[in-house]
Amino acid sequence: MKNTLFTKAIAVDMAHFFSEDDLHRNHSYISALPVDTVKCSLKIKDDLTLAGLPYFVETFNFLGAELDYEAFSEFEGKTFSKQDNFVINFDLPFALALTGERIALNLLQRSSSIATFAKKFSDLATPKGIKILDTRKTTPGLRGLEKYATRLGGCFNHRMGQSDVWMVKDNHKSFFGGVKEAVDFFRNMNGFYTPIEVEIHDLAELQMAFDLGIKHLMLDNFSPEQIREAVKVKPAGVTYEASGGIKLETIESYLIEGLDAISIGSITYGAPSVDLSLKYERA
Amino acid sequence: MKNTLFTKAIAVDMAHFFSEDDLHRNHSYISALPVDTVKCSLKIKDDLTLAGLPYFVETFNFLGAELDYEAFSEFEGKTFSKQDNFVINFDLPFALALTGERIALNLLQRSSSIATFAKKFSDLATPKGIKILDTRKTTPGLRGLEKYATRLGGCFNHRMGQSDVWMVKDNHKSFFGGVKEAVDFFRNMNGFYTPIEVEIHDLAELQMAFDLGIKHLMLDNFSPEQIREAVKVKPAGVTYEASGGIKLETIESYLIEGLDAISIGSITYGAPSVDLSLKYERA
Amino acid sequence: MKNTLFTKAIAVDMAHFFSEDDLHRNHSYISALPVDTVKCSLKIKDDLTLAGLPYFVETFNFLGAELDYEAFSEFEGKTFSKQDNFVINFDLPFALALTGERIALNLLQRSSSIATFAKKFSDLATPKGIKILDTRKTTPGLRGLEKYATRLGGCFNHRMGQSDVWMVKDNHKSFFGGVKEAVDFFRNMNGFYTPIEVEIHDLAELQMAFDLGIKHLMLDNFSPEQIREAVKVKPAGVTYEASGGIKLETIESYLIEGLDAISIGSITYGAPSVDLSLKYERA
Amino acid sequence: MKNTLFTKAIAVDMAHFFSEDDLHRNHSYISALPVDTVKCSLKIKDDLTLAGLPYFVETFNFLGAELDYEAFSEFEGKTFSKQDNFVINFDLPFALALTGERIALNLLQRSSSIATFAKKFSDLATPKGIKILDTRKTTPGLRGLEKYATRLGGCFNHRMGQSDVWMVKDNHKSFFGGVKEAVDFFRNMNGFYTPIEVEIHDLAELQMAFDLGIKHLMLDNFSPEQIREAVKVKPAGVTYEASGGIKLETIESYLIEGLDAISIGSITYGAPSVDLSLKYERA
Amino acid sequence: MKNTLFTKAIAVDMAHFFSEDDLHRNHSYISALPVDTVKCSLKIKDDLTLAGLPYFVETFNFLGAELDYEAFSEFEGKTFSKQDNFVINFDLPFALALTGERIALNLLQRSSSIATFAKKFSDLATPKGIKILDTRKTTPGLRGLEKYATRLGGCFNHRMGQSDVWMVKDNHKSFFGGVKEAVDFFRNMNGFYTPIEVEIHDLAELQMAFDLGIKHLMLDNFSPEQIREAVKVKPAGVTYEASGGIKLETIESYLIEGLDAISIGSITYGAPSVDLSLKYERA
Amino acid sequence: MKNTLFTKAIAVDMAHFFSEDDLHRNHSYISALPVDTVKCSLKIKDDLTLAGLPYFVETFNFLGAELDYEAFSEFEGKTFSKQDNFVINFDLPFALALTGERIALNLLQRSSSIATFAKKFSDLATPKGIKILDTRKTTPGLRGLEKYATRLGGCFNHRMGQSDVWMVKDNHKSFFGGVKEAVDFFRNMNGFYTPIEVEIHDLAELQMAFDLGIKHLMLDNFSPEQIREAVKVKPAGVTYEASGGIKLETIESYLIEGLDAISIGSITYGAPSVDLSLKYERA
Repeated sequence: MKNTLFTKAIAVDMAHFFSEDDLHRNHSYISALPVDTVKCSLKIKDDLTLAGLPYFVETFNFLGAELDYEAFSEFEGKTFSKQDNFVINFDLPFALALTGERIALNLLQRSSSIATFAKKFSDLATPKGIKILDTRKTTPGLRGLEKYATRLGGCFNHRMGQSDVWMVKDNHKSFFGGVKEAVDFFRNMNGFYTPIEVEIHDLAELQMAFDLGIKHLMLDNFSPEQIREAVKVKPAGVTYEASGGIKLETIESYLIEGLDAISIGSITYGAPSVDLSLKYERA
Repeated sequence: MKNTLFTKAIAVDMAHFFSEDDLHRNHSYISALPVDTVKCSLKIKDDLTLAGLPYFVETFNFLGAELDYEAFSEFEGKTFSKQDNFVINFDLPFALALTGERIALNLLQRSSSIATFAKKFSDLATPKGIKILDTRKTTPGLRGLEKYATRLGGCFNHRMGQSDVWMVKDNHKSFFGGVKEAVDFFRNMNGFYTPIEVEIHDLAELQMAFDLGIKHLMLDNFSPEQIREAVKVKPAGVTYEASGGIKLETIESYLIEGLDAISIGSITYGAPSVDLSLKYERA
Repeated sequence: MKNTLFTKAIAVDMAHFFSEDDLHRNHSYISALPVDTVKCSLKIKDDLTLAGLPYFVETFNFLGAELDYEAFSEFEGKTFSKQDNFVINFDLPFALALTGERIALNLLQRSSSIATFAKKFSDLATPKGIKILDTRKTTPGLRGLEKYATRLGGCFNHRMGQSDVWMVKDNHKSFFGGVKEAVDFFRNMNGFYTPIEVEIHDLAELQMAFDLGIKHLMLDNFSPEQIREAVKVKPAGVTYEASGGIKLETIESYLIEGLDAISIGSITYGAPSVDLSLKYERA
Repeated sequence: MKNTLFTKAIAVDMAHFFSEDDLHRNHSYISALPVDTVKCSLKIKDDLTLAGLPYFVETFNFLGAELDYEAFSEFEGKTFSKQDNFVINFDLPFALALTGERIALNLLQRSSSIATFAKKFSDLATPKGIKILDTRKTTPGLRGLEKYATRLGGCFNHRMGQSDVWMVKDNHKSFFGGVKEAVDFFRNMNGFYTPIEVEIHDLAELQMAFDLGIKHLMLDNFSPEQIREAVKVKPAGVTYEASGGIKLETIESYLIEGLDAISIGSITYGAPSVDLSLKYERA
Repeated sequence: MKNTLFTKAIAVDMAHFFSEDDLHRNHSYISALPVDTVKCSLKIKDDLTLAGLPYFVETFNFLGAELDYEAFSEFEGKTFSKQDNFVINFDLPFALALTGERIALNLLQRSSSIATFAKKFSDLATPKGIKILDTRKTTPGLRGLEKYATRLGGCFNHRMGQSDVWMVKDNHKSFFGGVKEAVDFFRNMNGFYTPIEVEIHDLAELQMAFDLGIKHLMLDNFSPEQIREAVKVKPAGVTYEASGGIKLETIESYLIEGLDAISIGSITYGAPSVDLSLKYERA
Repeated sequence: MKNTLFTKAIAVDMAHFFSEDDLHRNHSYISALPVDTVKCSLKIKDDLTLAGLPYFVETFNFLGAELDYEAFSEFEGKTFSKQDNFVINFDLPFALALTGERIALNLLQRSSSIATFAKKFSDLATPKGIKILDTRKTTPGLRGLEKYATRLGGCFNHRMGQSDVWMVKDNHKSFFGGVKEAVDFFRNMNGFYTPIEVEIHDLAELQMAFDLGIKHLMLDNFSPEQIREAVKVKPAGVTYEASGGIKLETIESYLIEGLDAISIGSITYGAPSVDLSLKYERA
């Protein structure tokens, strides 16, 4: 049985992508493309964690193809090596293969690039019991896909938008005139379950947050030493998220017991691209 | 006088980006954010070619700000060095600064990353009279921005969508049964001015394309030697575009007299990210 | 054979409702929900006139379910008693049942509440040959559903929007400077078939309307006595609609021979809610 | 300075509402309506908590009016008595007053009805330190407004959509085969900050939830006695939300120390309507 | 004071038209167009009834221009002669003049063509007390404009869409099994004010319609003689609309006393085009 | 195998057309229309080139019909004579036939009118080796259809929107201060393959354009004599497009050897309408 939910969930995005790529522009061309079946081969040409096959499949289905995701799902999230020369084969009408291939590949490449990069972080952090979080530094219009990809790379999602976690940042504190005032602004929003996280810059501020009953602290630009200090005073039921320019090269020194999570913006915007290709020929 | 055209041109995209980031979700929050003026500082924290200020400005204007792009335009396309610590200052209502900053920065960062990367290519190729082209390997939903950015980096735009240049690729030749048959399919679309470009794999195919009167040839995966051979037989009024995995590290050997252009997909999908920040405080 | 018209007619609304309820937000979740079949039971837990099954069914079909409305249609518009414990059974994929149930129930509950309330009015008025009309006091965004529901409760639809009947109200008369001037404004719109209705406040105004050839009169806030006076002078081919705060408790005294209709805003905005539930378990 | 954020946040909804009410249908009419200024009076005709003035104001501004919300904001959330005959006066072009009034009033009435009803609950519960929560049983398309209104009535917002709090309900437990399995499904979504709430039916299940480390429990259809039992075993850092058919008439007995919140679906779908009117005349 | 209603009413259409003409496609171009003021001249180059200036003006205003329709309104609906060489002058930013001119002219030309053609019919029919009606045979997507134009040409609007007048046509009668059955279907829709019109093919059918209490009759393909027969039996309070291939050349013989209206599909789809031009130069 | 691409390509337009024709307005009506099969006959009642069957078919399919375009495709682009009384038969559910017929016919009529008119031009020009081009003077919202239709009439498409060919017109030259300055503006847009066409008014300007390396010249309002002069100096690899008020009556004298194309705005806006009808009865 097909999961049509996902189809629906991304239909608006797909319409947007195809509009940009001229689906509506030349009616002679669109109506003239032959629909004879072609045999397609999606080839993995890099060391990568494959992610985004639901988007890949739905790109063609949006155009009317009837690909069954079941035949693809076993490969989703799997890690492949370049020398495996791994290939996924499937059939499509030529018109749909031709019209969808560029968008399908662009999406799959972006998603796999992020999953591959994310996995490098999670592989280091997971054994230490620390979770890697993404951020809102995602490509505008692709947040859903990019946060999907970080999870496939073994990472965790921070908030999805501006309102599902209230984050009290420097800009808030400065504007409202203090941590307490900023926290009050958000508490006054009456979101009973909405978590509040406060960005912390030193141990004094940390104590202020504890006093306000804050449960989630972002230790912003803390050095490993500072994190160790913070861990010492961490109350039960509280989470610590380290943040601020931590990279694959430097993460090791931040994997400190007592830290719950590390958020890394570059997981999404800084993921190096991986290579995939799609070929097809008349069946 | 304000150029409101750009505002209109990206309004649909902006609506999409803000929808993703919860503009519509929590009416208590959106209506409660104070609108007192804050002084904003956009800081350049990397060596980069700044690109995308129109998007940055319009992100806030979409929310109702009245930033005048004139005050920003002199910096657009300029190259900055990290140690300049360059800052652009402007005022915004707090509510709009807070709500727009993430999207504004995400767009500016993406655009500047691409312009910066593109400039590295164009700086090498331009002195040799060769143009660098982008491709359709752009982030779905951001093609307009990414192709805007490559131009600011001194490069040129290949086609904008599937239908403003007809490209005859391997998949077409194989499906239609030959170069001629594929070319005929597109000529039969009756686009009087629509350019036709044929992907070429060897000198024999090149000759076939000449015989068919094709003016634009993409030399796909040609080695520098093969390109030199092709240049020798190039007729007047014909353009050659080299293509296929050419990178910043290898481009030098492809800058061959007689070649008109080199198209490079990774200019858009592979541009390393650059760093920018936005701070603000109550005026 | 399926009536796909209704599906199309409400597709835009459905997209709006599901967007509000996070269909597009968490791609991991949406793509992970299992699609195994569950057996669903829609239970009627109140004395009510069941209305809105087309919306209920199409909520799930919008997500890709293939419910056949035929199996539901015999219950639409029927009146049930709480103690019947009436249940409608059907199957759905778990993913769709879970994602659609809240919206499906919210719509069905709203529609049934209105039909149930409307029926109380029509049961009183119909035997006297008087029709009960709804108004434009509907929930913004749900007018189609609410006017569908009043009809299922035995009532009639007043105009659907601002322009299918021209209504000359107090605000028009005051602004344009008189009944004649206001009527002229609308007649000058050249809508050959568009009915014109004039809101009337006393018998003098009624005569003015007759003199202007107006066929449809709304007797606004007339007492039963005033209505009786108005009926005495009613010309052939003219309709009278009483209006203004008439309630279920007071309607009896307004059911006066010669009156054609009574319009009641609270049929839609004041309908007391009825109770329904949906349960399901793995097949 | 105007807060244009709210304008933007509801612009899509407004377009939807006006489309339904024929804004686009008769171009002769829309272009002919005079724009002379009229003096408007919004009159409060009931005992009520006024809520929704931002929607009221933006309805007209959507059409091009330039009402300043500042002049209205002091009345928002205030409680009025019918005999106050309270009136808010403002000016509008006739064309906009006429075209917007019905939608503006429908929205204001709905919002005020809910705030008024919500306040009755919160007035009882707040002194006992218990918070009243709304639910997802909101009018499809109006969730933002209805959750805005419950807060103005002193209540708190439960989750905004399906994905900002994971709720483990009976349907999940039954489908996945147990509380643990259902909880695992949601934990596997990797939402680091996303709260998980489990619906609990008896004390045994409560213990299971504690063992799984669940922090938020919904005590579904618990009697006051059962709630008292549950409170006795409540660990630190855990919240209890009572739920299930609790009404204004019965709530008193549920206001039990140790309970954190009570969620009440009928706050939104069952709020009795309140009365407001808008009159205007040529300035 | 500006009537912003019209702006709003056609904003969705404008977005559609500009999307088709590449407003969103080339961001470099759109952001580079200079905004210096140009002096524009709209020239009338044909004998015509000028109609559609609101669309012309709003095309530019949609892009951000601030043209005041007041300065144009006196010419709307006026009849001009080619040799008048009439010109309307106004200023625009170059960027907006260039981007909007084609759409503005296409709309104005279409509207004026229809108004000019419609006026030829109404000039003949009006002195005889007969109204000319348009139909639903309008250009898909432009019904609002085309029905606006027929009115400016002195004609009247038939129904705006499928549901504001119920029309019982041959296809209905044949499908439902008779006039009565078809009428019953529509009466059962409970539209209290919705007019019902029946398409009539001979005098026997006319009598059947009278017996059913139908007030509006369309005499389909009646010859002038048949119309005269029908007029003889026309009851009070009934309207007759003649229909079926009546043209400018043949209308004279149909202008029969007792007939109320003649509907003519070709008023919209068959209007010969009129000529207008727009020139501009740097101020 | 069905070509679903076209369905997708025009889905947004279809939604727009049906919205205008009340698909969303009366839910009782839309849900009540019977779906029994009717036998439909599309009849050709004029001498015409049939064009637009894909739109005709997709109008019904948009509503949920499952017409197979294969059964219609052999007639697309064919020329019929009125006396052939040619009929295409197919089945539809009554509800869909009734709801879609007006839009389907309006589209087919418009498309066939243009193809028929276009063919008259191409029949004259083609034997002389000259191509007839359409323009951007298309009905706003129907450009795709109208340019599809001109091709079916044997003509060729000029640019699709403002940005796929850069046209340097009088307004540009005057604004930028000369041909060279205007050309430079467009060349600076860095569209590597985007053709540039310059509107030329005399032989001096023609020479300027050659000197600038322009390949595509539009000879604007050139007399046949002037065209002959221009042809004499035409370099290799250059195209000439004549333009300016050329009509069916006058085209013969413009069919001059050496000219490549003639563009004619009235092909789209001035095409006389052709007649088609659709009848259906219960199967």
